[in-house]
Amino acid sequence: MTTTELELVPASAAPLSTATNMKALVYHGPAQRAWEDKPRPIIQDAGDAIVRITTSTICGTDLHILKGDLPAVIDGRILGHEGIGVVEQVGVGVSEFQVGDKVIISCVSACLKCDFCKKGMYSHCRHGGWILGYTIDGTQAEYVRIPHADGSLYHFPADADEEAMVMLSDILPTGFECGVLNGEVKPGDSVAIVGAGPVGLAVLLTAQFYSPAAIFMIDLDDKRLAVAKEFGATTLINSSDGRAAQRVLDLTEGAGVDVVIEAVGIPATFNICQAIVAAGGRIANVGVHGKPVELHLEKLWDRNIAITTRLVDTVTTPMLLKVVRSGKLQPSKLVTHRFALNDIMRAYDTFGNAAKEGALKVVLTNSAAG
Amino acid sequence: MTTTELELVPASAAPLSTATNMKALVYHGPAQRAWEDKPRPIIQDAGDAIVRITTSTICGTDLHILKGDLPAVIDGRILGHEGIGVVEQVGVGVSEFQVGDKVIISCVSACLKCDFCKKGMYSHCRHGGWILGYTIDGTQAEYVRIPHADGSLYHFPADADEEAMVMLSDILPTGFECGVLNGEVKPGDSVAIVGAGPVGLAVLLTAQFYSPAAIFMIDLDDKRLAVAKEFGATTLINSSDGRAAQRVLDLTEGAGVDVVIEAVGIPATFNICQAIVAAGGRIANVGVHGKPVELHLEKLWDRNIAITTRLVDTVTTPMLLKVVRSGKLQPSKLVTHRFALNDIMRAYDTFGNAAKEGALKVVLTNSAAG
Amino acid sequence: MTTTELELVPASAAPLSTATNMKALVYHGPAQRAWEDKPRPIIQDAGDAIVRITTSTICGTDLHILKGDLPAVIDGRILGHEGIGVVEQVGVGVSEFQVGDKVIISCVSACLKCDFCKKGMYSHCRHGGWILGYTIDGTQAEYVRIPHADGSLYHFPADADEEAMVMLSDILPTGFECGVLNGEVKPGDSVAIVGAGPVGLAVLLTAQFYSPAAIFMIDLDDKRLAVAKEFGATTLINSSDGRAAQRVLDLTEGAGVDVVIEAVGIPATFNICQAIVAAGGRIANVGVHGKPVELHLEKLWDRNIAITTRLVDTVTTPMLLKVVRSGKLQPSKLVTHRFALNDIMRAYDTFGNAAKEGALKVVLTNSAAG
Amino acid sequence: MTTTELELVPASAAPLSTATNMKALVYHGPAQRAWEDKPRPIIQDAGDAIVRITTSTICGTDLHILKGDLPAVIDGRILGHEGIGVVEQVGVGVSEFQVGDKVIISCVSACLKCDFCKKGMYSHCRHGGWILGYTIDGTQAEYVRIPHADGSLYHFPADADEEAMVMLSDILPTGFECGVLNGEVKPGDSVAIVGAGPVGLAVLLTAQFYSPAAIFMIDLDDKRLAVAKEFGATTLINSSDGRAAQRVLDLTEGAGVDVVIEAVGIPATFNICQAIVAAGGRIANVGVHGKPVELHLEKLWDRNIAITTRLVDTVTTPMLLKVVRSGKLQPSKLVTHRFALNDIMRAYDTFGNAAKEGALKVVLTNSAAG
Repeated sequence: MTTTELELVPASAAPLSTATNMKALVYHGPAQRAWEDKPRPIIQDAGDAIVRITTSTICGTDLHILKGDLPAVIDGRILGHEGIGVVEQVGVGVSEFQVGDKVIISCVSACLKCDFCKKGMYSHCRHGGWILGYTIDGTQAEYVRIPHADGSLYHFPADADEEAMVMLSDILPTGFECGVLNGEVKPGDSVAIVGAGPVGLAVLLTAQFYSPAAIFMIDLDDKRLAVAKEFGATTLINSSDGRAAQRVLDLTEGAGVDVVIEAVGIPATFNICQAIVAAGGRIANVGVHGKPVELHLEKLWDRNIAITTRLVDTVTTPMLLKVVRSGKLQPSKLVTHRFALNDIMRAYDTFGNAAKEGALKVVLTNSAAG
Repeated sequence: MTTTELELVPASAAPLSTATNMKALVYHGPAQRAWEDKPRPIIQDAGDAIVRITTSTICGTDLHILKGDLPAVIDGRILGHEGIGVVEQVGVGVSEFQVGDKVIISCVSACLKCDFCKKGMYSHCRHGGWILGYTIDGTQAEYVRIPHADGSLYHFPADADEEAMVMLSDILPTGFECGVLNGEVKPGDSVAIVGAGPVGLAVLLTAQFYSPAAIFMIDLDDKRLAVAKEFGATTLINSSDGRAAQRVLDLTEGAGVDVVIEAVGIPATFNICQAIVAAGGRIANVGVHGKPVELHLEKLWDRNIAITTRLVDTVTTPMLLKVVRSGKLQPSKLVTHRFALNDIMRAYDTFGNAAKEGALKVVLTNSAAG
Repeated sequence: MTTTELELVPASAAPLSTATNMKALVYHGPAQRAWEDKPRPIIQDAGDAIVRITTSTICGTDLHILKGDLPAVIDGRILGHEGIGVVEQVGVGVSEFQVGDKVIISCVSACLKCDFCKKGMYSHCRHGGWILGYTIDGTQAEYVRIPHADGSLYHFPADADEEAMVMLSDILPTGFECGVLNGEVKPGDSVAIVGAGPVGLAVLLTAQFYSPAAIFMIDLDDKRLAVAKEFGATTLINSSDGRAAQRVLDLTEGAGVDVVIEAVGIPATFNICQAIVAAGGRIANVGVHGKPVELHLEKLWDRNIAITTRLVDTVTTPMLLKVVRSGKLQPSKLVTHRFALNDIMRAYDTFGNAAKEGALKVVLTNSAAG
Repeated sequence: MTTTELELVPASAAPLSTATNMKALVYHGPAQRAWEDKPRPIIQDAGDAIVRITTSTICGTDLHILKGDLPAVIDGRILGHEGIGVVEQVGVGVSEFQVGDKVIISCVSACLKCDFCKKGMYSHCRHGGWILGYTIDGTQAEYVRIPHADGSLYHFPADADEEAMVMLSDILPTGFECGVLNGEVKPGDSVAIVGAGPVGLAVLLTAQFYSPAAIFMIDLDDKRLAVAKEFGATTLINSSDGRAAQRVLDLTEGAGVDVVIEAVGIPATFNICQAIVAAGGRIANVGVHGKPVELHLEKLWDRNIAITTRLVDTVTTPMLLKVVRSGKLQPSKLVTHRFALNDIMRAYDTFGNAAKEGALKVVLTNSAAG
């Protein structure tokens, strides 16, 4: 323990166990990952907390990293930005959490102090944002350092279910904020969700907070559409014949739908969105796009529509926590596979073949912890 | 007067003068227009009013029609969708206006009864919308028939100035609704307006209702920029060197601006908008686009922005009337040229050479009226 | 048929049956009502429709009228402001409805043209508002004249249930607009509804459109509370011991609730609302008050709260129609008793003893119609 | 310097000058105040900053304290919650400010981490709120300790005017947030402000951000009304004859005004507000009330109004800073008197006789500092 760390940790803090190594899922360049030994993280800043991971999960973004799509991720980086755990140590500037607290880790780290944080745009925090498992080490490990802990952790509710709660790290706020809130879903609305993957399904679950009258689910995969049906979609449209947009227009007497939510991230799906948005409607983009799309302003300039983009801010986590606790939302529906954390290499294999495996979210449990 | 009309006009209505012809500006196919005799309009529906025009004006859209860009406009159509006049006759279903009332004619006709009108989207009225001088005869004439008169006319305030008030027919609500309201301009905001033509200047005037801290005006023409300066722009940027976007970024320390308003309608100007919108900002499109634009979702997907489109609804006309009457807005600033209505052929020549003539709005006065 | 009427009715309209009398529930001063003969209504204005009633109901306000609390109601007035029926005749200015259309009658008549209607405040319409069964004859009759028909009627959905739809005339929009929308209920919120009568229960049903986490229902009557439980309330509080406010505070760790909805209309219930509203919360008043209340600004001035009042505008009827049709709301739950329309005198007896009879809404069916 | 403080201050921090005493305005019970020696404040918590005061001012609330109206203020308390100064020392948890930074001190201390702060309700911060010069020592001193410095200080803009900027500590955000924002002033609105004291005038200045068409200013004092005229009020009403409400109604053809802002805090002024609010309007309470008011729900229940209360949150300080810097607001207009900080006893005398002295804000400059 360095001198610096000594100053940053309150005198009353429990001493960290003397073992200084841990196991972690480490990125070693495109298609290279390993479950290997890494030094345990230590407090580096007054606002840091060290959290022992009890539950983690894998995100589609982790697969993108492994494809090499995000060059900002360097060799040696521990992946993962979702998790549940127990606070092991806190910096002297942390006031909302104590050693021993069980916590939900948010995928976005928020200093709460910069101009963006003050506006509720944690995603663009000048000192944080999405950094876990991206520009700093992440949560697919036995321990993780969480900067700006007071803005990035949430108290785990007594008697709650870890599997459900880990969905609050990323996927539920992403679907809710980028899709449902930006889409401004209202009672009686018609909603179309393009993409029935885990994020699209998170949109589907949280859109129902506002009692839309109809939810069209559009995907290429009938198995995913069947899951959507179970989760509350009212109309299923398989888009593999290229006629999805026409079908939505036919079903709405040519009017289109009030709210269209893009949950894939490619030009083809964005095109469906443009084609089916009703006059006065909204397109809420959730998908991560790698190239430009052609926007048909020559058709849309007089349609009174809005198109929104958003990186999840996780500002709605407190609200989502209240809804989950009230029983009005069962996020563990999204969990299809379960592994021990130290079996994460196999979990990645399964999640990497999601279509074949029927995988949505894959939960990792650290049985050594707890 | 037909039997049908007899039933539609209240018994107490003043008899329409016996003359049945009038002069009007008539479209005869691309580049063909004439000031010629046409029959006076008559009441066709219970909600109609016949208005004797005292002031009219020409819109950039009229020039588009003359270029043949709007094929829905047929040979023989009287152009014009802006005007001030006096009610000559009303249908039996009209309750808010009487013969002799001086009125402002809105460019959008609103039935007030359909689902779109009830939502305040008069632009998409199922029985109206923009029809004047487009699919029915318009206001560049001695008389005009106004359908849905109760939703399409406004009482002319006592002692107001016709020249100022005719700007409420179209250009001010267009700038205000499509640009300022959709852009959600707030006190202290930075705003960029791309295009310093009449509509861009209407945006500029009405954006100041909300006390933004900075207004960047971007245009190719230094003369128009000079007008913008006079109208309240705080920074002028001539975009002819292709470096406008970079200049805005430099002036904002790379952050971009909170609200960007597109008032031209071509890909090049939309591209400037995309490049300068700040994280968390908004692009409000006002321009009429003839072709698609490339939307850089690969850069914008995580920027928490909104892009809006809108055809003017003219729902804010009552608000604008109150602001104009309070003296906080002088719309006659937009008027650069004045002609007699029967000199409209020459007025078109001037307006058609707006850049050379330094023309913004060209006002036409029917001296025979009043 | 008078000359005036002749002009107001389209030539193509079906001739009204020759019978000129009908049966109606008539007010003859405090505590005096009779089911008696009255002349059938006729078109008086271009915007009128004559509707043959198929279903009607009785409102708590009708009982207030019978107590003499609303002196604006004159001897001879036909009561009732709720109903379903079939259009028999329309004035020449009516465009959205035709003879033979089945319609829902809104309790509020909206001209759609005045400043208040244009702002969506139909309740304060300068030519309408609540007038049916109040200042003009109402719907507890075989026929009724509906002024401003285009703004006051709604198309009855094919295959819908009349019993459910008649709840859209008044009680559902009242609970939703005055209580839920003004209260700004959000997902995860805690909500308290003071008063479990029909209106309070309409609030309860429609509050659930927004997925609040907890709904406290407060009333003096355990039977009504039991109904509330069935309708989705999460906590029941019998206020007869005068400790309701304290109990809510205890259950919320002293914080109070986010949204408090007053659905009674007396100082005692308003006092509960003041005592339990959380900092940052809202009190939405739905109840009709006969006297002032003491507002504790000395405690509330720094609590960042809002108190709202509202007479129902019925602007949300189209939205409510969509939700009801989607199956997300079953308004017929509110119906406890059914009578033939010509048995309305007995229906009033039952509804007048609501507590004893366990009556919520009492539906009246005109079996002669249809 | 205690051991605790040692740990809380970064090693790199400039050593605090060795002098350990300072001068301060100290409360010694009702009507007892003294400019006397007190120990200089020291860092007590990781989030603290010590600020050397360069400019301070006196608030009406300070006079309330001296009357004994706020018993939570104990003997020995240093008063004052407004000020400009220079950071002398920061705790280890402070990240946004450094020693030597010139800062604006907000009257509200915000931890930024609690549920209320995350909702933007800094006024109800669980670890802060209004505490300066109330429950902890304040700014009418040579030095002050500012807890939660990152949420409670703002960077002083280069070249700005201290006199103008000290108005951002309290009075401008109070008028703007509690009055203008809660009142939802819109372009073209009619606004009435009841009370032309410093806070009412701050409302008047900031209401003009939104271009209302008319601003009625109501007060008992013609001198204050004359100031209001100069500041932009369009109609002045002296309420000393008890006919202010009637006059407003006469001037608005009985309709009342869209937004009414209470800036006094007594039943008589609140009654004026109730009497003049238009249907659909809002009453925004800014005044501090000591007793209940009679709320005429029997007249207001169906008027579709809102009444709001608020303790200033100071969340709009960044926005106000931008507007002030743009030159659209000159807050130093509010300053009528200037004193040296060590002449504060005399400044209190002047401010305590505000009516006679024509005093609005009294600025105190610490000439020793800077």
